[in-house]
Amino acid sequence: MNILLLNPNMSVSMTESMHAVAESAVSPSVQLVPVTASRGFPYISSRAEAQIAGGLVLEMLAEHQSEADAAVIAAFGDPGLAAAREIFNIPVIGMAQAAITAASMLGERFSIVTFSPQMSRWYLDSVESSGLGGKFAGVRTPESDSLDPFGPQESMHAELLTLIDQAVNLDGADIVILGGAPLAGIAPLLQPSSGAVLVDPIACAVTLAESMTRITDK
Amino acid sequence: MNILLLNPNMSVSMTESMHAVAESAVSPSVQLVPVTASRGFPYISSRAEAQIAGGLVLEMLAEHQSEADAAVIAAFGDPGLAAAREIFNIPVIGMAQAAITAASMLGERFSIVTFSPQMSRWYLDSVESSGLGGKFAGVRTPESDSLDPFGPQESMHAELLTLIDQAVNLDGADIVILGGAPLAGIAPLLQPSSGAVLVDPIACAVTLAESMTRITDK
Amino acid sequence: MNILLLNPNMSVSMTESMHAVAESAVSPSVQLVPVTASRGFPYISSRAEAQIAGGLVLEMLAEHQSEADAAVIAAFGDPGLAAAREIFNIPVIGMAQAAITAASMLGERFSIVTFSPQMSRWYLDSVESSGLGGKFAGVRTPESDSLDPFGPQESMHAELLTLIDQAVNLDGADIVILGGAPLAGIAPLLQPSSGAVLVDPIACAVTLAESMTRITDK
Amino acid sequence: MNILLLNPNMSVSMTESMHAVAESAVSPSVQLVPVTASRGFPYISSRAEAQIAGGLVLEMLAEHQSEADAAVIAAFGDPGLAAAREIFNIPVIGMAQAAITAASMLGERFSIVTFSPQMSRWYLDSVESSGLGGKFAGVRTPESDSLDPFGPQESMHAELLTLIDQAVNLDGADIVILGGAPLAGIAPLLQPSSGAVLVDPIACAVTLAESMTRITDK
Amino acid sequence: MNILLLNPNMSVSMTESMHAVAESAVSPSVQLVPVTASRGFPYISSRAEAQIAGGLVLEMLAEHQSEADAAVIAAFGDPGLAAAREIFNIPVIGMAQAAITAASMLGERFSIVTFSPQMSRWYLDSVESSGLGGKFAGVRTPESDSLDPFGPQESMHAELLTLIDQAVNLDGADIVILGGAPLAGIAPLLQPSSGAVLVDPIACAVTLAESMTRITDK
Amino acid sequence: MNILLLNPNMSVSMTESMHAVAESAVSPSVQLVPVTASRGFPYISSRAEAQIAGGLVLEMLAEHQSEADAAVIAAFGDPGLAAAREIFNIPVIGMAQAAITAASMLGERFSIVTFSPQMSRWYLDSVESSGLGGKFAGVRTPESDSLDPFGPQESMHAELLTLIDQAVNLDGADIVILGGAPLAGIAPLLQPSSGAVLVDPIACAVTLAESMTRITDK
Repeated sequence: MNILLLNPNMSVSMTESMHAVAESAVSPSVQLVPVTASRGFPYISSRAEAQIAGGLVLEMLAEHQSEADAAVIAAFGDPGLAAAREIFNIPVIGMAQAAITAASMLGERFSIVTFSPQMSRWYLDSVESSGLGGKFAGVRTPESDSLDPFGPQESMHAELLTLIDQAVNLDGADIVILGGAPLAGIAPLLQPSSGAVLVDPIACAVTLAESMTRITDK
Repeated sequence: MNILLLNPNMSVSMTESMHAVAESAVSPSVQLVPVTASRGFPYISSRAEAQIAGGLVLEMLAEHQSEADAAVIAAFGDPGLAAAREIFNIPVIGMAQAAITAASMLGERFSIVTFSPQMSRWYLDSVESSGLGGKFAGVRTPESDSLDPFGPQESMHAELLTLIDQAVNLDGADIVILGGAPLAGIAPLLQPSSGAVLVDPIACAVTLAESMTRITDK
Repeated sequence: MNILLLNPNMSVSMTESMHAVAESAVSPSVQLVPVTASRGFPYISSRAEAQIAGGLVLEMLAEHQSEADAAVIAAFGDPGLAAAREIFNIPVIGMAQAAITAASMLGERFSIVTFSPQMSRWYLDSVESSGLGGKFAGVRTPESDSLDPFGPQESMHAELLTLIDQAVNLDGADIVILGGAPLAGIAPLLQPSSGAVLVDPIACAVTLAESMTRITDK
Repeated sequence: MNILLLNPNMSVSMTESMHAVAESAVSPSVQLVPVTASRGFPYISSRAEAQIAGGLVLEMLAEHQSEADAAVIAAFGDPGLAAAREIFNIPVIGMAQAAITAASMLGERFSIVTFSPQMSRWYLDSVESSGLGGKFAGVRTPESDSLDPFGPQESMHAELLTLIDQAVNLDGADIVILGGAPLAGIAPLLQPSSGAVLVDPIACAVTLAESMTRITDK
Repeated sequence: MNILLLNPNMSVSMTESMHAVAESAVSPSVQLVPVTASRGFPYISSRAEAQIAGGLVLEMLAEHQSEADAAVIAAFGDPGLAAAREIFNIPVIGMAQAAITAASMLGERFSIVTFSPQMSRWYLDSVESSGLGGKFAGVRTPESDSLDPFGPQESMHAELLTLIDQAVNLDGADIVILGGAPLAGIAPLLQPSSGAVLVDPIACAVTLAESMTRITDK
Repeated sequence: MNILLLNPNMSVSMTESMHAVAESAVSPSVQLVPVTASRGFPYISSRAEAQIAGGLVLEMLAEHQSEADAAVIAAFGDPGLAAAREIFNIPVIGMAQAAITAASMLGERFSIVTFSPQMSRWYLDSVESSGLGGKFAGVRTPESDSLDPFGPQESMHAELLTLIDQAVNLDGADIVILGGAPLAGIAPLLQPSSGAVLVDPIACAVTLAESMTRITDK
């Protein structure tokens, strides 16, 4: 089974780190095909960028779908998801919908923790469009842009643990989604110090893509 | 990875047919552990039976959870699901929630087709509690109890195809869930004659259980 | 008119204290028939226990319904309610649904105050399934398990008044439900010191059971 | 216990027929105090009339509340309900909210049957503002104004039974509210021929007013 | 084009200040026709007053509609709006619905800031009945009745700016509605010091009345 | 006041016909600036095309916003709307949101009538994302693609009137939106033969853009 890992950002290193997380999540029979956008944005951080990136996703899918059984849109906010499902006949999974869906099956109330307050509203949109807002306990971010999403991940660990703690103890979450591609791979490192189950959106997206392919691939 | 396939009905033959469907859906690395209820009901067909069956599910889980990485409750309506998630530390997946969740990722509007009008209200409850009712196009069943869920499956094919057609053409569904354990395994047989993607709840439940285990099993 | 007061907990003293509250609420023409579970749990405090207790409720109803015109399930969370309504032809009323329904008719925004933070999520479920969440101002509980629900009720009064005050002044409630069987009978004692109308779920449940019987008993 | 039965219409004969239904529903300890509007409309049949009638309700309540423990607004659509609750310290119950609330406790899905298509939209508003729309199966009325709400009730029986049948068999209702003051008292007559539990809004309103008074009258 | 500016309060000075704001908002081709209630209340501040004021609105409309192409109900809470739309054939616009509607088109999340905590619940009702609650970030008011809505507007500026700041920085609003007739005309004065777009409900109501007339006046 | 009329389709004749409708709707002080996409699609008829067209909208806005006080996205489905609002400081209005918003202020229940069944699901999305679905009575289209949206408009009149009739008499609509750019300008022609108020989305969009500019342009 071949699953496209479409990074609509231009950052190859981000594709690589997501690829590593994805590899450790899927079953051995899955072949991941990472693709990085050749134009567009270094990191999608607004709806305007997502609007354009959604078009790039369609182009990347058009070019690579013949090699694939399913595809993952590897950017939080799922740019181009509805459009891609409309025109391609393979399962297409978005990181945000996948993470929220997984959260709804793993526990009772989920929070999203991410690295920047800029992303909050956009994440609220993802929750609302998922239909699963009834289980949502809120977004927690640093108050200012104190975290550097492109610096070493270790520098974010302490602050993220504080935010996870607040999500658990103040907001009542038993599941915490670590949102945004720059946090890919952190969940297993912070899990032992966390009072909630941590969820990595890219891991959710690829295993759900595998699952959806198994269901429909008859 | 070991996944419990808990049939809260007493019918071993139903466990076997669901086991066969489940085997063909999971990846080779998954070992399915089928368990059939040793007391209770031949086939759960009311909320009252589901109330009691939910207690049996907890007992079955208590007895077998040490052998398992995840569990599937193999009865539509998900008896005992919330309770099981509350007390056991492994992912627990219900057929109804799994099928509805899969439908929401595979298409735009889903219908449920099943064998008896008796089940309609109960299925409506499952949709409502899933939070995904915004994508729901309705339930289609025979008008009377004309289908025998325990007779040969072939005898139901023609009527099911009619119901699928109505779901597609009158209700606008592009995904159809074939609901109820007696329909396990029919989806791939009817798929070539159907205008919508057909979804088998037991296949959904086991692959999502596998997926949730991969995500949390670090 | 005979109304069953079904306590799915095994505590006879709790049945007795609820019976006393119920007696003072119904009209003189009502004969209450208290029944205490002969097996199960001393006090239902989780969804898993409620799952099993719901089965006991069905058994208790099956045994006693011939003596009754209506039944009350006397445990917050309403274990077995939907199932009981499905199979028995008399009105069956749950404490949580009754209290929330009464609150919606008595004022504009209601809060729930209870004795333990453990119960919060479960109460949120009751509110959500009631459909009346649009009028809900939140749950207030002690931060830790500082109150002993089985000790003398007087020891809880001061803390409960503080929580009621917070519900009124911080959350904007004009109605406060005192949730959980251990708080039965406290409402009239605290009412003079409270800025909101206090509602006792067991009183709500029995008078609504009487009301529903009058409506349908022709 | 004294309960005001406030008819915001000017029709004394309608007050009398509702009074008779109410008498047969409350417990013997309740004294009903019927009051008919001395100005306004013969029969409220639009939101404009209800706007003005709501003001009359406030006047009637201001004049009679000192004699009363609770009040019922005896016109479907509940004119003045929110305003009355805001300024008077006794329970105030509306026919529409009462009937819909009772329906939600007596069964799974309720329909409203009434005598004229003119009333449909208004009834939809009542359902929406009740918050219980999730259990609503629809309104059924004659297609034209073929029924005379002020003629002999018997002349409506056959058509009402047809509408009840449609609500049950086409819409899946197990509870049917007979909406509108002109249908007061018909429910017990049609009950033996109906496949659903029939609910009379005036009976609901007075017994719920009695119930709410018992709960708060300490 | 003539647009009625119906003030259901008896305060002529309030009509005048709203008229001035309205004049500066509509296009030159609009002739505003201000009308002040000749009986009723100096300032509507409860639902009971709104119930009665709604009736006055209908009377004022009946008297003046022949001179008008559209009408604005110039009191927050929109007394009589649904009733007026039912019986008059010209567009009728309410201040609350207009402001909330405008907010939903101008930004992502809106708050309401007003002068008294008494008004909060009523404003929540307006948001709920608008259907646009998904974009609502909350109401901010002084904690007590510290502001005098009938004193000089300047005395309120500092406190209003503090509330606007809280709405923006604590609640995440990018649009703030200044609610209540006494705040008419303040928005442009505070706009330069505010981090959100400020919206004046009376300006919204008259320009939307103009817009609705243009759409339907063919 | 200058308002951009952005047609993200490449059809200049469609821009011209929408321009004519828009001219007749705005006040004389408004200068409309029509812009037609120089690349992309002849007519946007899928979400995939809308994804890409949304990017074109951003480009068109970036190029022309300095000349404008507000902008209208002149394609049903509002491609790029949220993104445009995020990055540009002028009011940006979409045809679908504008039409639905206007419908909610002009009547009680609205339907959408359009020329092709292909568009139904997409229109359902627009209604859902507007938050005003509580007032929605459904979409009516021809059963097949029998109408040619690019042929002479007159050829569609009879069929459109039939659909409007169904919306009014079967679905209970009192407002009907004529959806899709090819229907621009038809509303006033069919209004005399229709039992509901007909709404032209392009007229709504430009007058609401004018209104929003007046409100914020101080």
